[in-house]
Amino acid sequence: MKTILINTGTELLLGDVQDAHLAFIAKEIFPLGLRIEEQRTVPDGRGIRSALTDLFPRAEIVFVTGGLGPTTDDVTREITAELLRLKLVSDERVMTAILQRFAKRGIKFTERVSRQAYVPEGAEVFLNENGTAPGLYLRANINPPFHSPHLFLLPGPPRELQPMFRESVIPKLRSMASTSPLFDRRMYRIAKMGESLVEQAIGEKVLAIPGIELGYCARPGEVDVRIIGDPAAVERADTIIRSLLGPAIFSSNDETLEEVVVKLLVERKETLALAESCTGGLLADRITDVPGASAVFVAGYIVYANESKMDVLQVDSALMERHGAVSETVARAMAEGARMRAKTTYALSTTGIAGPSGGSPEKPVGTVFIALAAAGSKTTARQLFFPSDRETFKQLTAQAALDLLRKTLIKGSGD
Amino acid sequence: MKTILINTGTELLLGDVQDAHLAFIAKEIFPLGLRIEEQRTVPDGRGIRSALTDLFPRAEIVFVTGGLGPTTDDVTREITAELLRLKLVSDERVMTAILQRFAKRGIKFTERVSRQAYVPEGAEVFLNENGTAPGLYLRANINPPFHSPHLFLLPGPPRELQPMFRESVIPKLRSMASTSPLFDRRMYRIAKMGESLVEQAIGEKVLAIPGIELGYCARPGEVDVRIIGDPAAVERADTIIRSLLGPAIFSSNDETLEEVVVKLLVERKETLALAESCTGGLLADRITDVPGASAVFVAGYIVYANESKMDVLQVDSALMERHGAVSETVARAMAEGARMRAKTTYALSTTGIAGPSGGSPEKPVGTVFIALAAAGSKTTARQLFFPSDRETFKQLTAQAALDLLRKTLIKGSGD
Repeated sequence: MKTILINTGTELLLGDVQDAHLAFIAKEIFPLGLRIEEQRTVPDGRGIRSALTDLFPRAEIVFVTGGLGPTTDDVTREITAELLRLKLVSDERVMTAILQRFAKRGIKFTERVSRQAYVPEGAEVFLNENGTAPGLYLRANINPPFHSPHLFLLPGPPRELQPMFRESVIPKLRSMASTSPLFDRRMYRIAKMGESLVEQAIGEKVLAIPGIELGYCARPGEVDVRIIGDPAAVERADTIIRSLLGPAIFSSNDETLEEVVVKLLVERKETLALAESCTGGLLADRITDVPGASAVFVAGYIVYANESKMDVLQVDSALMERHGAVSETVARAMAEGARMRAKTTYALSTTGIAGPSGGSPEKPVGTVFIALAAAGSKTTARQLFFPSDRETFKQLTAQAALDLLRKTLIKGSGD
Repeated sequence: MKTILINTGTELLLGDVQDAHLAFIAKEIFPLGLRIEEQRTVPDGRGIRSALTDLFPRAEIVFVTGGLGPTTDDVTREITAELLRLKLVSDERVMTAILQRFAKRGIKFTERVSRQAYVPEGAEVFLNENGTAPGLYLRANINPPFHSPHLFLLPGPPRELQPMFRESVIPKLRSMASTSPLFDRRMYRIAKMGESLVEQAIGEKVLAIPGIELGYCARPGEVDVRIIGDPAAVERADTIIRSLLGPAIFSSNDETLEEVVVKLLVERKETLALAESCTGGLLADRITDVPGASAVFVAGYIVYANESKMDVLQVDSALMERHGAVSETVARAMAEGARMRAKTTYALSTTGIAGPSGGSPEKPVGTVFIALAAAGSKTTARQLFFPSDRETFKQLTAQAALDLLRKTLIKGSGD
C-alpha cells in the first residue's frame, strides 16, 4: 500500500527542530510489510492543504504529524475536516481526559486547550496519554464521493506520538495491511571501516544474488549495510556478508554499539569504569542510555582539568609534564587509575584535542589517544587522528573507544 | 525565490538514519532572505527522477543531498545529467583531489571511487575537503530549451555538506538572492514552562501587531517562541515578549541552555563541577559540546554505583541507608562533595530513577532530585517528577539542572 508521511511544522522548515517521526514510523511499520515511499515537510497552515490535495488521489495510507496542539498555528484538524467536508464535533471522552490530566498535574486549564476536543465527525479517536491533543483516524473514503486514503492525524511531540503509534496505530494498520510481508530485511553495523572498502569487500558478491536490494549508509565512525529481498535471497546474502566481514560487524539486529557492549558485559558479569577527558561525558551518556546499564557501569570520571586527572585518577604530574596531558602515557595512566578507583574489570579512557583551539604543530586539533585497562592483562592504547568539528570528534572518539572494548570482549569470549 | 530541498536516501525512508540537512540549510539561508518552502525525502535511484521532474517547473532553487558517493546506489549525478541532457565528463581537479586525499590518509584507492570525478558538462564543482564526492552547481536553465532551477547537488554526510555549504554554496546564493531580506526573525527559548501557558502570556498581544508571524515549538523541558515579520513589527513584538516573559527566556539568539551557562560562567570567571547519577554523563556531554568549556568546567563525577558516591564524593553511607540514594539529602551531599573535590565555585548534582525498572510505591520511576552547591551560600535542592522514557527523563533532568544554575547565575549578576 502506497504510504506517505507528511510532517507539518514551520519550525522544521526553519531548522529550529529536527524531525524524529520519519525514522520512528518507518521502523515501526516495516514488519507489517509497509514502507514510507515519500516524506514531505510543509509549513503550518495552508501548506498541509495543498500537500493533502496533491497526495489524496495517489496514496493509500497518509500519516500527518503535528498541528493538533492548542495554539493558533495548529490547524491540521480544521483543514482535514474542510477538505473532506466533515463537521467538527466536540468529543466528550477527549474533553474529560484533558480536564483530568490538568487536574492531576495541577496545571491551569486555559480556554484554548478545549479546541483539542473537537474532532471531524466519524473519526476514530486515539486518546493521548502523554499530552492533550488526541490522535485521529479517518478511514479511506470516509465521506463519499470524496476519494481519500486511510488518514492518521498524529500529535507532533515524539513522546506523545510514539506510545500512541505503538498502542493504537499499529493494531489499526495490522487490520488493513497484508499480514505476511513478502520481503525480509537485515542491517549490519560496522565500526571503523570506510564505505568504499565495505562495498569492495561485499558489493559484487551480494548483488549477484537475484532480487536483492543493497544499500549503504555512512555516519561518524560507522557504516551500515542494508539488504532487503525475499527471505531466501536475504538468507544467501547474509551468509556472504558474515563470512566476508566477520567480527567487523558489531550488530546485525539494529543494536547500537553501546547496547552491544552493555549486553556483552552483562553476559560476562563484568564491570566498566570510564575516564573521559576529550569525550567529556559522551561515552558515559551513551552507556547510560542503555536500560540496565547500572548492572555493569560503576563510575565515570570526567577529568577535564589536569588537576582532576591527578586528584581523581592519580595520574602522575611528572608524567603529564613530560608527555603532555594528550599522550599515550597519560591515556594509559587514566585508564589504569579509573579501573583501580572503581574496582572494575575494565576501564576505558580518552584524551585528545577536540578543538577548535588547543592544537600545536606536533599535536594538531584532532589528535586523540584511547586506552583500555583490563583485569589480568596489559593495558591497550591507540593513537587516532580525527580532524573534524568538535561534536564529530567526540563521536568518532567514543565510537573507537567502544569498539576497542567490544573487540576485547568478543576475543575473550572466544578463548 | 521558491526554494526546495530534496533529500535522497532509502536509509532515511527506512528510518536507519535521521536527516540533519533540513535544519542546517534552513538556518544558513535565512539571513539571505531565503526559506525552504517544502522538503521531500525520496528513495535512492528513480525516486529522485520523479521529484525533480515534478519540481523543476515550479522551483527557483533546488538543493539535492546525497547520492553522490562511490557505491552503486548513488545515482543523483547520473539522473540529473540525463534529465538535463548533459554529458558526464571526467573532471581533472576532482580526480587529483581524490587521489591526494587517499594518498595522505594511506587509504587504498578503489576503481569505483573514480566515478565521483565525473560531472555534468557545464556544472561548477565545489571540492570536498572532508570526503571524496564533490558538490555540483548547475545554473538555472543550463541547457535551453529545458527549463531548470538553480540546482545544487551536495554530498550526503553532514560533515562533508556543512563546510562546503558555508564556503561555496552561501557565496553563490548571495550573488543570486536579493541581498536585503524584508523580514526579520527572532527566537526565544524558554525553559520549564508549558506551551499553552506561554501562549496565554503572550499570544494575544503579539498577534495584535499587524504582519507578525508567531510560532511555538515544544521539546523536552523547553518551549521555543518564534516571530517573523518586518523589522519594525518584530521590534514591537520583541518588547512585549521580553516584558511578559522576562528571565524565563534563557536565550534569544539561538543559543542552547549549555552555551548560555558556559558563557555566564566565563564572564564571571567562575567554575563548575558535576555529580551525575541518573543523567549518567548527559550534563557533562552537553557542557563539553560548547567550545571553550574547558575554561570553566573542571570535572564531572558520574557516580552510578552507590560505592562510587561514597568513594569519590564522600557521601555518607549512613545517609544513603537512611534516606536512599535517590533523596534530597543525598543530592545535596553529592553536590557539596563534588564542589569540595573539584574546588569549584559551583557543583550540580542529579539523582533519580530513570527506569524502566527500579521504581517503588514511594519513589516511582521518574522521581528525581537535583541540587546546586555554591561557594558562600546554602545548597539549593529541588524535587521533580518526570515519568517518561529513559532518554526523555535524562533530558528533562539535565534541562532542569542547567536552568537552576542559570537562574542562580543571573540572580548573582543582578546583585
